[in-house]
Amino acid sequence: MYRIDLPTYDVPKKWYNINADLPIDLPKPKSSEGKDQVGDLPNMLINECLKQELSNKRYIKIPKEVRELYQRMGRGTPLCRAKGLEEKLNTPAKIYYKREDTSPTGSHKLNSAIAQAYFAKKEGVEKLTTETGAGQWGTALSLASSLMDIDCTVYMVRVSFEQKPFRKSIMQVYDGNVYPSPSMNTEVGRKINKETPNHPGSLGIAISEAVEEALADEKTKYSLGSVLNHVILHQTVIGQEIKTQLEIAEEEADTVIACVGGGSNFGGAVFPLIKDKINGNSNTEFIAVEPAACPTLTQGEYKYDFGDNMAFTPLLKMFTLGHDFVAPSDHAGGLRYHGMNPQVSLLANEGYITSKTALQTDVFAAGQLFAKTEGVIPAPETNHAIKVAIDEAKKCKETGEEKTIVINFSGHGLMDYKGYASFMDGTMENSI
Amino acid sequence: MYRIDLPTYDVPKKWYNINADLPIDLPKPKSSEGKDQVGDLPNMLINECLKQELSNKRYIKIPKEVRELYQRMGRGTPLCRAKGLEEKLNTPAKIYYKREDTSPTGSHKLNSAIAQAYFAKKEGVEKLTTETGAGQWGTALSLASSLMDIDCTVYMVRVSFEQKPFRKSIMQVYDGNVYPSPSMNTEVGRKINKETPNHPGSLGIAISEAVEEALADEKTKYSLGSVLNHVILHQTVIGQEIKTQLEIAEEEADTVIACVGGGSNFGGAVFPLIKDKINGNSNTEFIAVEPAACPTLTQGEYKYDFGDNMAFTPLLKMFTLGHDFVAPSDHAGGLRYHGMNPQVSLLANEGYITSKTALQTDVFAAGQLFAKTEGVIPAPETNHAIKVAIDEAKKCKETGEEKTIVINFSGHGLMDYKGYASFMDGTMENSI
Repeated sequence: MYRIDLPTYDVPKKWYNINADLPIDLPKPKSSEGKDQVGDLPNMLINECLKQELSNKRYIKIPKEVRELYQRMGRGTPLCRAKGLEEKLNTPAKIYYKREDTSPTGSHKLNSAIAQAYFAKKEGVEKLTTETGAGQWGTALSLASSLMDIDCTVYMVRVSFEQKPFRKSIMQVYDGNVYPSPSMNTEVGRKINKETPNHPGSLGIAISEAVEEALADEKTKYSLGSVLNHVILHQTVIGQEIKTQLEIAEEEADTVIACVGGGSNFGGAVFPLIKDKINGNSNTEFIAVEPAACPTLTQGEYKYDFGDNMAFTPLLKMFTLGHDFVAPSDHAGGLRYHGMNPQVSLLANEGYITSKTALQTDVFAAGQLFAKTEGVIPAPETNHAIKVAIDEAKKCKETGEEKTIVINFSGHGLMDYKGYASFMDGTMENSI
Repeated sequence: MYRIDLPTYDVPKKWYNINADLPIDLPKPKSSEGKDQVGDLPNMLINECLKQELSNKRYIKIPKEVRELYQRMGRGTPLCRAKGLEEKLNTPAKIYYKREDTSPTGSHKLNSAIAQAYFAKKEGVEKLTTETGAGQWGTALSLASSLMDIDCTVYMVRVSFEQKPFRKSIMQVYDGNVYPSPSMNTEVGRKINKETPNHPGSLGIAISEAVEEALADEKTKYSLGSVLNHVILHQTVIGQEIKTQLEIAEEEADTVIACVGGGSNFGGAVFPLIKDKINGNSNTEFIAVEPAACPTLTQGEYKYDFGDNMAFTPLLKMFTLGHDFVAPSDHAGGLRYHGMNPQVSLLANEGYITSKTALQTDVFAAGQLFAKTEGVIPAPETNHAIKVAIDEAKKCKETGEEKTIVINFSGHGLMDYKGYASFMDGTMENSI
């Protein structure tokens, strides 16, 4: 079987909340001294999402309308066997990849965007604001907002905005309002623009702009595409589907591999499976792969830190490189974040998750090999997972182990041709 | 049901050859006076493809290896119900779309590329040459050649080469050798470059370069992505799958709509269904949609003409705007061809196919509406089919007819953002 399909009616009916099964309680968000960021949350976030963020209920029902949109937007996604790659590597390992790239916007991001836009609409929210780096999240939220008929404003890190005019165009097809950040829309933006004309921007600044706009108007809410628990909750449809599909294929995963930036594609794929490991019923290894240039889990500190540069957000207990950390320019824009989802952080700290880093040139080499053998061109982020999967499959060749390796294929790289171009012409550098 | 999947094991086992069922015999290719282009064919084309080109056998077995690659590269593709679009149009019509965009290279082109690369390899061919305009065919043949481990040289119309650096990068990921045409590799190219430095190129010139290179070396063959009968033969997996999927959905198509350039996505989707109409067992309407700026079927003449500008190819009996016709610059690069597949031409001439034209700005408006309601962003070519499908659905609203409309969704538009950008900023023009 080259592909295990899930019929649309088999899309999961519930999201899985790992809070109910964590080995220890998740530390709560905190305000910093003299400020009340936690108190600001209800003005900032969609109410239902905030409720989910703090919930300990094991399963949360997916509303009928959200499930219908999941179905219409391509869920369940296929789980494919990477036969061509296996043969090229001459490995006894079996490699599967879960194709989240088959979403209309090309990545897993739509799973949370649809849910957030749905709850926002239901609560009378008229506009969502957000930030985007690589553009995957901004694209997904633009589409989801268009489907729910609400406005969407995207602050796109200026350097990305200028380097990726196509991302802007695609968001505009979905009626997204895209601004280069720092913009002139917000106090934060105007201040930075005044001090530093043509500032290249950063994810932290873009978040601050989106939050400022949301706090200023009660019909406007801020929507985040990763890091927070409710985002990963929405993404658990991925892991639940993987579980069902592995059962159909009569396989058990020895290793599950995904890239990590804020944690949403990793947590979404892994949490429904890691539950058995926490309960002592599974030996599956879960590997989170991050860029060597932004080594949050491998070299960060596990402590309370802000989610953004300007300290608008509460303090979260997480692995962090410091909220003023600026990741070097890198093509895997989705992985350049200083922090990490608190649940992923806790599980990594407790030893349930292995973390690894990979060099940019190595991950693109892995991505090209994948493209040439399996057809699909992976996103730069996804290449990180593929690199480590190939390493694992090569180890199996040495040891003769017939491991079952599952990759969460978070997105395609059709819009990341500049990264591939610089890899192929030899100008790509490893910023480390 | 939002999506009718076909499991990989249900991929068709045979290609369907419409030659066996045409209402009158297909006129044969001819040489022009004093030349022997027909005699050159064996040196130019892959032997098995040439055999298929002239075959009258109704079904031709798909080799096991080709079928396996079809399966691995995403076949069967889904047939989806355009529920969101239907609701937006408030039409009683049911609209389905066959998602050929789910191929790794984003269009239907891989169906023939895999077959051609397979037969080439089997015959000891070491290199395939081809031309590409929009880039879809060059991308598909680069991947197929990489999968079969043979070389691939793509002559890309210079103006496209310069406007679409991403297409070149994607082909290079698959190890395709891409040259702007006119190039310095061939006599034709050198002559044109000498006479007109910085010549923008044309599809006709690129074909002539690819053919010249193939004729000069016996281990090199020329591969075409549309127009010829064997290409459409390979594409009939699309229509056969549609037939099976409509049966599963318990639907009968009243109208099937596809865009036409050389005829491969149209013929591939339609031939397996048009058979019943030729036999008098069906009233389905088959609509071919072309750009108003390149109106081959609607305004061309049905006569013998060359397939390329330089008259290297034999004369084919087809609808043509003249082999020296230069289509105005237009974003639907895949539809800018002066001629038309001979089988499609014959069936149009005999009244089995309705042809329509559409204006560029109208088709992009249709494409944006589709993207906002269904998620997937269509290719500019595909937008032509969508435009006419929307017109038909609107007619149904007036008449109250519950027609079943099927669109062949030939490809996605993620790499055609420039067209969308110019549509949205109002700078797009209709070159007519």
